[in-house]
Amino acid sequence: MLIHKTRSGLGGCIKALVRAFSRSSITAMAKSKFEYVRQFETDDTCLRNCYIVVRLDGRNFHKFSEKHNFAKPNDHRALALMTRSAQSVMEDLEDVVIAYGQSDEFSFVFKRTSTWFKRRASKLMTHVASQFSSSYVFYWKEYFAEQPLLYPPGFDGRVVLYPSNRNLRDYLSWRQADCHVNNLYNTAFWTLIQKGGLTTVQAEERLKGTLAADKNELLFSQFDINYNNEPPLLKKGTALIWEKRDEPVTKRVKVPGQEETEVTVTRTRKRVCPHHCDIIGDQFWDEHPDILESDGC
Amino acid sequence: MLIHKTRSGLGGCIKALVRAFSRSSITAMAKSKFEYVRQFETDDTCLRNCYIVVRLDGRNFHKFSEKHNFAKPNDHRALALMTRSAQSVMEDLEDVVIAYGQSDEFSFVFKRTSTWFKRRASKLMTHVASQFSSSYVFYWKEYFAEQPLLYPPGFDGRVVLYPSNRNLRDYLSWRQADCHVNNLYNTAFWTLIQKGGLTTVQAEERLKGTLAADKNELLFSQFDINYNNEPPLLKKGTALIWEKRDEPVTKRVKVPGQEETEVTVTRTRKRVCPHHCDIIGDQFWDEHPDILESDGC
Amino acid sequence: MLIHKTRSGLGGCIKALVRAFSRSSITAMAKSKFEYVRQFETDDTCLRNCYIVVRLDGRNFHKFSEKHNFAKPNDHRALALMTRSAQSVMEDLEDVVIAYGQSDEFSFVFKRTSTWFKRRASKLMTHVASQFSSSYVFYWKEYFAEQPLLYPPGFDGRVVLYPSNRNLRDYLSWRQADCHVNNLYNTAFWTLIQKGGLTTVQAEERLKGTLAADKNELLFSQFDINYNNEPPLLKKGTALIWEKRDEPVTKRVKVPGQEETEVTVTRTRKRVCPHHCDIIGDQFWDEHPDILESDGC
Amino acid sequence: MLIHKTRSGLGGCIKALVRAFSRSSITAMAKSKFEYVRQFETDDTCLRNCYIVVRLDGRNFHKFSEKHNFAKPNDHRALALMTRSAQSVMEDLEDVVIAYGQSDEFSFVFKRTSTWFKRRASKLMTHVASQFSSSYVFYWKEYFAEQPLLYPPGFDGRVVLYPSNRNLRDYLSWRQADCHVNNLYNTAFWTLIQKGGLTTVQAEERLKGTLAADKNELLFSQFDINYNNEPPLLKKGTALIWEKRDEPVTKRVKVPGQEETEVTVTRTRKRVCPHHCDIIGDQFWDEHPDILESDGC
Repeated sequence: MLIHKTRSGLGGCIKALVRAFSRSSITAMAKSKFEYVRQFETDDTCLRNCYIVVRLDGRNFHKFSEKHNFAKPNDHRALALMTRSAQSVMEDLEDVVIAYGQSDEFSFVFKRTSTWFKRRASKLMTHVASQFSSSYVFYWKEYFAEQPLLYPPGFDGRVVLYPSNRNLRDYLSWRQADCHVNNLYNTAFWTLIQKGGLTTVQAEERLKGTLAADKNELLFSQFDINYNNEPPLLKKGTALIWEKRDEPVTKRVKVPGQEETEVTVTRTRKRVCPHHCDIIGDQFWDEHPDILESDGC
Repeated sequence: MLIHKTRSGLGGCIKALVRAFSRSSITAMAKSKFEYVRQFETDDTCLRNCYIVVRLDGRNFHKFSEKHNFAKPNDHRALALMTRSAQSVMEDLEDVVIAYGQSDEFSFVFKRTSTWFKRRASKLMTHVASQFSSSYVFYWKEYFAEQPLLYPPGFDGRVVLYPSNRNLRDYLSWRQADCHVNNLYNTAFWTLIQKGGLTTVQAEERLKGTLAADKNELLFSQFDINYNNEPPLLKKGTALIWEKRDEPVTKRVKVPGQEETEVTVTRTRKRVCPHHCDIIGDQFWDEHPDILESDGC
Repeated sequence: MLIHKTRSGLGGCIKALVRAFSRSSITAMAKSKFEYVRQFETDDTCLRNCYIVVRLDGRNFHKFSEKHNFAKPNDHRALALMTRSAQSVMEDLEDVVIAYGQSDEFSFVFKRTSTWFKRRASKLMTHVASQFSSSYVFYWKEYFAEQPLLYPPGFDGRVVLYPSNRNLRDYLSWRQADCHVNNLYNTAFWTLIQKGGLTTVQAEERLKGTLAADKNELLFSQFDINYNNEPPLLKKGTALIWEKRDEPVTKRVKVPGQEETEVTVTRTRKRVCPHHCDIIGDQFWDEHPDILESDGC
Repeated sequence: MLIHKTRSGLGGCIKALVRAFSRSSITAMAKSKFEYVRQFETDDTCLRNCYIVVRLDGRNFHKFSEKHNFAKPNDHRALALMTRSAQSVMEDLEDVVIAYGQSDEFSFVFKRTSTWFKRRASKLMTHVASQFSSSYVFYWKEYFAEQPLLYPPGFDGRVVLYPSNRNLRDYLSWRQADCHVNNLYNTAFWTLIQKGGLTTVQAEERLKGTLAADKNELLFSQFDINYNNEPPLLKKGTALIWEKRDEPVTKRVKVPGQEETEVTVTRTRKRVCPHHCDIIGDQFWDEHPDILESDGC
């Protein structure tokens, strides 16, 4: 046998080697012996012909925002970083047809017919959570030049399926309505503190039981703030969609017998574009008919 | 009504305000109208009294390792960064009783009786994937001082349940046997290229059909490498467990009527500690009897 | 204490009683001690807004049909009993909007918005399987007067969800196309045996590789059978739906000062009605617009 | 083409035939076109190395027992029929290692390593529900000779997994403790009515808030009933297990040159045997060590 021949005359280290050899063989065999454990994995394929929504939420972001001195009620750098991270996810996963974010959450909608990761829920949600989180840290310094990142933040996720366009739109409407309700509250709350001189406890007390109209009124009459004029980013959150954009590209062209010249050519490229508009009504969907697939499939 | 009174005399902006008010109310109501979409979430609670394993795998790490000039066959910086990120996950999730990693993968084992995130599979795996990924970027520069991180890396994950200690140990044995098999192959493969001057195609051809013993032999006879002497980190991978360590802590003590003095006190703390030993046999488990809970529960 | 008082003077049996008492108490307490096992049940709620299809298939019906001398290729008694059993299921579960059966299988379609058994898959499918099976035995003698039932038959079931009307119709089309393909084959197969004098092996051989057109041709040219004229029940299977029927009801009416008289009143009742028509094309669905709910929900 | 040739001269019916032919072809093709709907089935394989428990419960058995004049508090015919049906299930599914029943419920425990129906939950539970239900109707007249079955009864089912012997035994203990608690209550309740002359409302009122000891005392002091002496069947329910029994079998033996004689041979056969004993304590399990598999697997 080859091994024996080669080994002849190796002297003292033979025994160790033999042990190493046999150990390796044992491990190799062991691997196949242990492989039965793969059967314990369960199939978590998402039902076909449903939209797959992955929603991420920041973990302990109350504490995180304090430690990193986020401006109140809204920190534009933090919101922009969320959007940048979401864009990074979309560019990685082209089957995300729309993403919607506000505050410390972001939802990613995979198209009905997506076959990414064979529609395996675990793969889809962990990949989104991972890519979003690593992007958040990666791009941090672009948005927080002055404020160092003190520790790695965490996001958790979930998967929800929606069988119809109506259900999906209602999901997105739910999140945008949540954005509005929370932002109006937070705007009133922090205005009472920052401009009204109240403590957090007093501000909370003051707002208890108030309706949306009451908060609008309060902001307007006491602080001369017309909530309606607040930036759309804050009132509506951010919807990211793919859009085709014509882009000028400069090319160098050489015609035989002439000198090389520069020519500007128009090229159509798909890009992730942000929108801070109402997505509850029909207008947005009418203007972007390619986001949803027909229910008739 | 209060609003009418306050608004009297506001002139031109009234209409806009009224619109804003009514819009807010509509949205607030809308939120509850849309809330039915929460019912589409499904319960993915993990079966009780089973070990919950979350395994992460690097996505496209072949390309990632090339772009970032990882040393071949093993980059010690990269392995250390994986371990650092896993440690960050464990410190965040104390119910992880053991984690095992090799190459670009890491497995986290939650104890049988864990109730973290109410045992919801989606929460557990996305949290692990997120915390690991953000840590990987966060700690990058500590391990790769010279090599900038070019883009945010991704990891995907899965959850597997194991009902018995035997099954769990077989799972970990499977991963460690995999570590061994791959590392032996890679060591032989890259030695043939780096020291033997072969091309990757030639090296692959040379190793086709060889057994573990053949590869050991090849390394020893041609390159004077005793695979048995390779570092345990590479042959065995890394197991992280919680260990109690006595640590000296300096305290300032003030006895009345005397000057303040410094006293060194011993304190027992749980810490995440790495091991690069065999976890297939019984010895490791006999030495650390607290990792597993009894099957008799 | 009441017990002691009452027991005073009971003499010899006291000890046994005490034992019984304490045992009971122990058991009562034990019950709550064991109750933790309920937490091992998992939630299997069906995704909202999807059609829930439960399909039953006869187990070992090849053997069952032989033991009970079913006529070949089709036994009208057996098909009628299947339909009777399915009707029994529908009358028990009003949320079944359509059921479709052929051969030894039957599919039950619950409406999208059904909340029967809180949409729990296990409850839905076991209830259908149970009710169908007990009905099959219960009604046996109505259809097989001469042939005693030799042993209790079994059916197994499954649940499948369909998110859109198109998907659901395609499911039903799939089963009806299957009915057609099988029935054409069986008709040709048994005709070759019963009228052509072939053995089963010869018949199988003869039909190997033939297309639908070939089998039609064979039946027509050799046996003068126009497959097109076969009964719709066999070619199309049986669709059961709810239909409103006006039914004359006789009532006794007593007007004061007059004699009691009988009056015939028309009453509208929902009834389960069988159809043996094509359900692949649009006509059936256009004629029964109430079966499906809109995709727009 | 063959078809055309054969059809030549067929005159008027050609068109109909052609239609039939083409229709068949369309349907055959359609079948494969529709087959995509199979992808909507989800995998519901039960986790390996866990006991699979299927529990059936009678639906509306309160009404069913009244309509069929069941004796109160316990009808021995009804309990015997439940046991007979459960036995029929076990004989059909040999991997059921123990079944336990009481009142209108029965639990079936599949061994940990069972691969019946590839461990698909839906198949396992529907098959048990179906076989039990058809058996219940099939064997009805053997137990209820005088009382005709008025309508087909229903049972619903569920699947629960148990990872350890302790969990499984606790599950069975839970059901047996439930049997005890209910039977003691029912015995007291119906004794108050049947012997004490109370109405159901009065009996309920009388037992409100009583402990097990109080009910024992009540039965003993007022009605001279020592609950301890009640039949084990009622107090403990019924456990069915497989037991090896030596059975005498008569064989005809023919030795050449002699006359044929009858010989009695002992043969060991596995049979389903009922037990009405305590299964909470260790004794039963010590006496039948083959029921459970080791946790060490």
